[in-house]
Amino acid sequence: MYRTHNNGQLRAVDINKEVTLAGWVQKTRDKGFMVWVDLRDRYGITQLIFDEERTSKEVIEKATKLGREFVIQVKGTVIERVSKNPNMPTGDIEILVSELNILNESLTPPFTIEDETDGGEDLRMKYRYLDIRRKPVRENLIFRSKVAMAVRNYLSKEGFIEVETPYLIKSTPEGARDFVVPSRMNAGQFYALPQSPQTFKQLLMVGGLDKYFQIVKCFRDEDLRADRQPEFTQIDCEMAFVEQEDILNAFEGLTKHLLKEINGIVPSNSGSKFPRMTYDEAMEKYGNDKPDIRFGMEFGELNAVAQNKDFGIFNQAELVVGIAVPGGNAFTRKEIDNLIDWLKRPQIDALGMVYVRCNEDGTYKSSVDKFYDQEDFAKWAEITGAKTGDLICVLSGAKNKARTQLSALRMHLAEQLGLRKNDEFAPLWVIDFPLLEWDEETNRYHAMHHPFTSPKPGQLELLATNPGEVKANAYDLVLNGNEIGGGSIRIHDKKTQALMFDYLGFTPEEAKAQFGFLMDAFQYGAPPHGGIAFGLDRLVAILGGQETIRDFIAFPKNNSGRDVMIDAPAPIDMKQLDELHLKVEIKK
Amino acid sequence: MYRTHNNGQLRAVDINKEVTLAGWVQKTRDKGFMVWVDLRDRYGITQLIFDEERTSKEVIEKATKLGREFVIQVKGTVIERVSKNPNMPTGDIEILVSELNILNESLTPPFTIEDETDGGEDLRMKYRYLDIRRKPVRENLIFRSKVAMAVRNYLSKEGFIEVETPYLIKSTPEGARDFVVPSRMNAGQFYALPQSPQTFKQLLMVGGLDKYFQIVKCFRDEDLRADRQPEFTQIDCEMAFVEQEDILNAFEGLTKHLLKEINGIVPSNSGSKFPRMTYDEAMEKYGNDKPDIRFGMEFGELNAVAQNKDFGIFNQAELVVGIAVPGGNAFTRKEIDNLIDWLKRPQIDALGMVYVRCNEDGTYKSSVDKFYDQEDFAKWAEITGAKTGDLICVLSGAKNKARTQLSALRMHLAEQLGLRKNDEFAPLWVIDFPLLEWDEETNRYHAMHHPFTSPKPGQLELLATNPGEVKANAYDLVLNGNEIGGGSIRIHDKKTQALMFDYLGFTPEEAKAQFGFLMDAFQYGAPPHGGIAFGLDRLVAILGGQETIRDFIAFPKNNSGRDVMIDAPAPIDMKQLDELHLKVEIKK
Repeated sequence: MYRTHNNGQLRAVDINKEVTLAGWVQKTRDKGFMVWVDLRDRYGITQLIFDEERTSKEVIEKATKLGREFVIQVKGTVIERVSKNPNMPTGDIEILVSELNILNESLTPPFTIEDETDGGEDLRMKYRYLDIRRKPVRENLIFRSKVAMAVRNYLSKEGFIEVETPYLIKSTPEGARDFVVPSRMNAGQFYALPQSPQTFKQLLMVGGLDKYFQIVKCFRDEDLRADRQPEFTQIDCEMAFVEQEDILNAFEGLTKHLLKEINGIVPSNSGSKFPRMTYDEAMEKYGNDKPDIRFGMEFGELNAVAQNKDFGIFNQAELVVGIAVPGGNAFTRKEIDNLIDWLKRPQIDALGMVYVRCNEDGTYKSSVDKFYDQEDFAKWAEITGAKTGDLICVLSGAKNKARTQLSALRMHLAEQLGLRKNDEFAPLWVIDFPLLEWDEETNRYHAMHHPFTSPKPGQLELLATNPGEVKANAYDLVLNGNEIGGGSIRIHDKKTQALMFDYLGFTPEEAKAQFGFLMDAFQYGAPPHGGIAFGLDRLVAILGGQETIRDFIAFPKNNSGRDVMIDAPAPIDMKQLDELHLKVEIKK
Repeated sequence: MYRTHNNGQLRAVDINKEVTLAGWVQKTRDKGFMVWVDLRDRYGITQLIFDEERTSKEVIEKATKLGREFVIQVKGTVIERVSKNPNMPTGDIEILVSELNILNESLTPPFTIEDETDGGEDLRMKYRYLDIRRKPVRENLIFRSKVAMAVRNYLSKEGFIEVETPYLIKSTPEGARDFVVPSRMNAGQFYALPQSPQTFKQLLMVGGLDKYFQIVKCFRDEDLRADRQPEFTQIDCEMAFVEQEDILNAFEGLTKHLLKEINGIVPSNSGSKFPRMTYDEAMEKYGNDKPDIRFGMEFGELNAVAQNKDFGIFNQAELVVGIAVPGGNAFTRKEIDNLIDWLKRPQIDALGMVYVRCNEDGTYKSSVDKFYDQEDFAKWAEITGAKTGDLICVLSGAKNKARTQLSALRMHLAEQLGLRKNDEFAPLWVIDFPLLEWDEETNRYHAMHHPFTSPKPGQLELLATNPGEVKANAYDLVLNGNEIGGGSIRIHDKKTQALMFDYLGFTPEEAKAQFGFLMDAFQYGAPPHGGIAFGLDRLVAILGGQETIRDFIAFPKNNSGRDVMIDAPAPIDMKQLDELHLKVEIKK
């Protein structure tokens, strides 16, 4: 037994107890006749005191030689602290040490083990095991563990069964790139790591398991954008004998439970039900299929009131669209110019911005006063909901592009104005997603969700004539401008699934080779079913009031997919390659 | 809403309720004027009745056309059953159907969906989604889910934090073969899938997380023996600031909790503590490091009483060792000959067996009466604990070989005699494992557990002179003759770890390249730590009173590592290989 108590445990009631503690030296203060040591572990910090009147000379001497991050064990008596520290749970007491045992020494760590460290991202990742000693990182990992347990307990209570699906599966060219695993026993053949357990969970429904969930790692070999990981964790769920309504209710229940259990709150915007919005409405009102609805700034479409005047740019635009920025009339000319520069950057690529100041005296002052009068602006204000003191920002151009740009501006401004509050949670269902989306690169339609998503009843025929118009029973759960979950009702008959593969450009042979097992399964009494998957990394970060998923992953990879701590990936032995029937061939 | 109730739910109190049910047609009985259908789902079976006096003609007609495994939805009234079935939870009622809706048809399944099916293993694996519809398979998966939840809840309550460690890590030639994953972004480099999260959990201890667990998939590219899977699941645990005693107590607690929570029992052999036995004692008493102690039949070493007589075979043997088979005197000559044949098979490879019948009248009759007298046999009986009516079986030869053979015979006989009872659980700690074991193939010592296991205090020096003698703080938890968990106290200082790598034949460069990150970590204040890992697949099977882990895995692979349902592994596209900088090269 290395310790009788941990370092967050002792209180005034424990005074006079003989205790044994162990942990890391956070810091030492040496006053000559007295030495104090802050002893740290996962549970907290306890102050140790070595005092020349009460501690043996030998022990004091040892104490003076302790360095930061030394691992020690001490025996001593809990005594009352002379100057109490009300900011520490153990601040009423200290340990008068009688025995000191150095369990392990430490080199000086490459960065400080403090809440605010002097270590940069790269250094902290290389020494992640030291980074984890810092309270903010440790607390994030503990938080993640709590969220996962809360998910499991809730879903289990609701009758969901956690089933482990295989990691060594088959590669399919649809969707993102697979990571593959060469098979030694089956020469020239490969497993793939799952991008999601999609087909397996559907097979579990065919198998009658009824309510399935799994917290599971998934893998995508994508070029990594900021804050994406090649391996990530999903809360994967599926239900049989359900309609969309059943699924929305079930996972609204889960989300409410998490917000209550983890954050202790009931979402500000929801009475008994989370609000719902169609995909079309979300695009129209927010230019975004995952709108942050914690603040207003809804889009106002101004075509009817801004076109057919003398302003050519608006006249030629497919869409003229604006937002009212609350209190934005206070922006200086310079600040507005900065906004325009921000919009013109290649990432946003806007040509410019028209703005209207809503003055305190009820008049308007705009960058297009030449073309519009006060009455025009009053209409703009009405449509965008602008009040005196606001600023109306207007963009124009091709519909989708203008919406995307204005959405980016809206989020940028909300951030600037402090409207995205970490402790406010506004969930939203976005429903009725299109079944297909046009892919410019391959010049064909792709499944927006995935090829197993069912078109809305009665819309199957539309596929032949207006594929872009077909809507699906597909839905996303959006929280504070982030998609935290997405799912759909699935196809459950072979004929429709075959038709879908056909529309997506699979030959019957390709469909059979890749998904034959699923279509076979549909012939043996597949029930109606549907499901949803949550991104656990993102969900945990948002519930934790943060944005970076990397901060909630114990050992994340960097943007090149490398683990810089263990230095992986790495070359392997020739012998291993031989056994796998492979040769490395790097083309220039 | 597809249903108001499930098929295991309705009781006599529900009579007269209007209900909607959905599920699979288990079977139909058509008496012309009346049709009965057994409707099945995950929760049970409910009987439907269609009756020409009370059901519309159209609905009855539809009902007569239902085939096995059709998916249907019915509306109707709960009525009292005329001939009740006390063997079914829903046996008091049936549903008088008013509406019948066929949700999906089914081809005739390739095997019967019954508790006892006519489908062979291969067929059931190919159509695993149908196999899962069978109650025994479904119940196994639900059972597994329950065990996993019980593990998580117990460990969480005890302050363990579940941390996800990475799946894309680095290949190390030590131990079994790794599965590797080629990196597209880092040409010529590979990730490896973890054989266990060993080094990561140790780093979490260095990181101060103190108590870690994870239920996690692990991967080994081994030639598959019967009932081994290339991917398997571990309950992986680690604790800091602990000695062996702390770990044994913590996981004894977990095991007791599972036996109580899942099986509703307190182990027969344990009062407050599980029994413990050293590795040496286990080998001596049972010839096995995972003895089944539910029945006696302990080994008796007979060298002292059987050697130095005229029986040359025993005289030349390193070990003469026997067991008493309870009631074995009842075996016929033929049965004993069969045992001897069984021992002589190449798998066991014994040269023969000496036996002694302990007659009811107190005399002995043996196969070596020529060399020994009654007094000799009385000593043999005393040493093996044989009583009248028993049979003493004696083997001889090289110590390890004779023990292994006698252990196999002991288990074989116990099985035959029905001494291995499914509902009896006798856990046992086997402790003090050797640190190293000699590997005949490579002609050097290997780590018996793994290279991170700490030698017992004070035994480090022995490594140089008597490496085979060095014991470790390594332990296995054995349940009913199966190793369900194993672990050790780890090395936590760089010097010892470097020394260990040296003894295991690593050059300093190899050690640094493969485990440099761990040895670096040990320089920054690594705490004393240790842990354990349980094989979840095996644990679940044993708690479920069964032996085959495959029966508790939703989608297992066959003995060639193939998933015959999805047909994986499979060849991949040339384009994928190119992107991965690889060429397949199959050597003859």
